Amino acid sequence: MKKDLVFVLAPDSFKESMTAKEVCEAMERGIKKVDSSIRCIHVPMADGGEGTMQSLVDATGGVVHPLKVKGPLGHEVDAYYGITGDRMTGVIEMASASGIQLVTPEDRNPMVTTTFGTGQLIKACLDHGVNKLLIGIGGSATNDGGAGVVQALGGKLLDDAGQELGFGGGELGRLASIDLSDFDPRIKYVQVEVACDVTNPLCGPTGSSHVFGPQKGATPEMIEQLDRNLSTYARMIHEQLGIDISDVPGAGAAGGLGAGLMVFLNGTLKRGIDLVIDYVGLEDIIKDADLVWTGEGSIDSQTSYGKTPLGVAIVAKKHHKPVVALAGRVGDGVESLYDQGIDSIFGIVKGAATLAEALEQGKENVEKTAEGITRLMYSTNAFS
Amino acid sequence: MKKDLVFVLAPDSFKESMTAKEVCEAMERGIKKVDSSIRCIHVPMADGGEGTMQSLVDATGGVVHPLKVKGPLGHEVDAYYGITGDRMTGVIEMASASGIQLVTPEDRNPMVTTTFGTGQLIKACLDHGVNKLLIGIGGSATNDGGAGVVQALGGKLLDDAGQELGFGGGELGRLASIDLSDFDPRIKYVQVEVACDVTNPLCGPTGSSHVFGPQKGATPEMIEQLDRNLSTYARMIHEQLGIDISDVPGAGAAGGLGAGLMVFLNGTLKRGIDLVIDYVGLEDIIKDADLVWTGEGSIDSQTSYGKTPLGVAIVAKKHHKPVVALAGRVGDGVESLYDQGIDSIFGIVKGAATLAEALEQGKENVEKTAEGITRLMYSTNAFS
Repeated sequence: MKKDLVFVLAPDSFKESMTAKEVCEAMERGIKKVDSSIRCIHVPMADGGEGTMQSLVDATGGVVHPLKVKGPLGHEVDAYYGITGDRMTGVIEMASASGIQLVTPEDRNPMVTTTFGTGQLIKACLDHGVNKLLIGIGGSATNDGGAGVVQALGGKLLDDAGQELGFGGGELGRLASIDLSDFDPRIKYVQVEVACDVTNPLCGPTGSSHVFGPQKGATPEMIEQLDRNLSTYARMIHEQLGIDISDVPGAGAAGGLGAGLMVFLNGTLKRGIDLVIDYVGLEDIIKDADLVWTGEGSIDSQTSYGKTPLGVAIVAKKHHKPVVALAGRVGDGVESLYDQGIDSIFGIVKGAATLAEALEQGKENVEKTAEGITRLMYSTNAFS
Repeated sequence: MKKDLVFVLAPDSFKESMTAKEVCEAMERGIKKVDSSIRCIHVPMADGGEGTMQSLVDATGGVVHPLKVKGPLGHEVDAYYGITGDRMTGVIEMASASGIQLVTPEDRNPMVTTTFGTGQLIKACLDHGVNKLLIGIGGSATNDGGAGVVQALGGKLLDDAGQELGFGGGELGRLASIDLSDFDPRIKYVQVEVACDVTNPLCGPTGSSHVFGPQKGATPEMIEQLDRNLSTYARMIHEQLGIDISDVPGAGAAGGLGAGLMVFLNGTLKRGIDLVIDYVGLEDIIKDADLVWTGEGSIDSQTSYGKTPLGVAIVAKKHHKPVVALAGRVGDGVESLYDQGIDSIFGIVKGAATLAEALEQGKENVEKTAEGITRLMYSTNAFS
C-alpha cells in the first residue's frame, strides 16, 4: 500500500455495546496493529436518534452534563445534555427527559405526559451561553405540541379564565391565550436545529395523535381528543403569533414538539443524519480520505437513507471514496446498500455467540475485524 | 482491480456444516457476484483427518463408494472409500471402518477392537485396480498394530499351535508366526501413502498403548498387556520379515496401524496436510494465483502447522501469494498465524447465532463474506 494513508472513521454507535467514539477507537487499534503510520481521523457519528448527543460531544471533545428534570409524568428523572468542545453548542435528546422509555407501559398516557423536562434541558444549555442548539426529538412519550417546553422556558399558556394550563396534551383544548412576556429572551439569539426524520403534520389523519398516539398509550377516544386539542393549539398559535404551523411537514414529530420548536424557538427541522453530517463537517474531512470506515450495530435492508452508514456513504461517494462498513449484525438484503455507496460490509462476530456475548465482545471484535480488513488491503496491494 | 484475476480456493471442510467442495462453491458464488470474470480454481483441501476422503474425491471428480465391513467390534458397519477421478487412486479413512465413533463409550476395549474393516476397504480399492492408496489413520478405536488389516488382506497371524489369532490387541501376545503366502499380491504394485501427524513409536512409554490406549477404553492393566503384545508383534515382524519397526516414528499411530501399514503395505507416512498438498498439486496451481483463499470451521491459536489453512499459507508464501482465510469461528491468538503466512482472517458469522444456526447458515455466510472481501478489494483498487 502507499504511504501516508488517511482513513476516516465515521461509525454510529453499536447500540448496547459501544458508543461511536469507542467504535472509532477499536477500529484504530486494529488498523494501527497493521500499520501505525496510517492516519485515522475519528468522526463519531449519529443519525439524530439515540446516541446523537454522546457522538456529537465525543466528536468535539465536549462534556455531557447530568441534570435532574421533570420527567414525562412530572416526577423527577435523571436526564443529560451535552455541551460541545467549543462550548458554543448545546446538544439535547428529548428522550433523555421526556422519552417513552421513562414511562412504564401501564402508565403511558399522552393526555398528561409533558415535554417540560426537555425545556429544562434547553434552559440549562442557555445557561452555558451556547449560541446553537441541536435537538434530537425521537422516542417521545408526549403529545403536548411542545407545550411543556414553552412552559419550562417561561411561556404562559392560559385558559379563558387566565389560569395556566396543566401538563399534557389533554390540557391544550382549553388554551385561550399565549403569553410570552416572560419567555426566556436568550432563545432569540440561539440557532436551533432539530433532528427530525418524519414529515407528519401536526393534526389530522396523518398527524401526531393519530399516527404516533397509539404507541404512547392513547386510546381511540384519547386520539380524537388529542387531535382536536392540537388543532386548538395550532389555531391559537396562528391567531396570536401569526404563524400557521398546521400544514408544515414535521410539525407532528414527537407529539407536536416539532411544531413547538419551530414556532417558539424558531427551530429548523433537518433530517438527523444530515444535521450530524453538517455539524461535524464530514464532507470536508472526507475529501482527504483514502478510505472511509463506517458501521452500526445492525445493518440490513432497513438501513436506508437516514441511517448513518448510508448517510456517510453518500457523502463519501460524492468524492469517490471507498466505503467499508462494520456491523454487529449483517441482516438480509444488504445488496441494495452496495448499490447505494457502501462498497463492502463485514460482520464482526467471531463465531456462534449469544446476543449478550456479541455485545460484550464488541470492541474486541471491531478491533480484530478492522485488523483483518487492513491486513487484506495490505496483502493485496490496495491503494497503489 | 486488474483483469483476468485468478483466485485459488483451497479451504478445508467446515465440520458439521460444509464439505470443502461446498465451501469452494460458496466462495465462488460470492466472488462472482462482484466480478464474473475472476477465474476461481477449486481445490477442496483436507489435512488427513476427517473429510480427507471427501475432499480428495471432490478435488479430482471421483466417486465415494459405500461398503459394509466389519466394524471395530466385528459387527457390520457402513463404511466408505473413495476412488479419485482418474480411477488410479483409492482414498481411505480408517475411522470410516475402524473408528472410535463406531463404538459406544461403554463398549470401548482395545483388547478386542480390530482394523479388519480398514483392510476390507483397502481390498475394495484394489478391486478397482488402483495403483495408489492414500490412507488417513486418525480416530482409531483399535490397538492391534494393524493386524486386522493384515488378516483382511489374507495374511495369517498364527499362534504356536498354528492356529490363527482372533481379533484385537489382546491376541498379539500369542503371535508365534506370520504367514503371508496368501497375502493379497496386488499390494506389491500399489504405492501406499499414509496421512499421519503423530510420531509416536509402537511401544514403550510414548508408544501407542500408553499414549492413546486410555482414550480407547484401556484400563492400566490393559495398557501394560497391550504394550507387551505390541512388543511381541514387533519382535515377530523383526525375526520373520527382517523389518525393525519398533523405533520408527509414527509406527504407534492409530494403535500401531502405522507400523502395520509400513511393514505389510510398504506404506510411507506423511504429514496429512503435506500428503494432500502433494496429491492435489497445490503448489503448481498456486503459482498462477493472484490470491489464495483458504478456511476451516474453526481457526485459532491451535491452528498450527499440520492444519489446512496454515499448510496452504506456507505453500502460498513460497510463491509470495496473498492468503485470506475464512472461518466459522475465529478464536483467540490468531495473531501468530499472521506471522506464519495467513495475511488476513475473517469470521463468516453475521450476528449473534447459536452454533446450530451458524452451522446451518454456513454456505450463505461464506458466500456473503467472500462477496464482501472481493468488494473491498475492488473498491480499494487491489492487485493494481
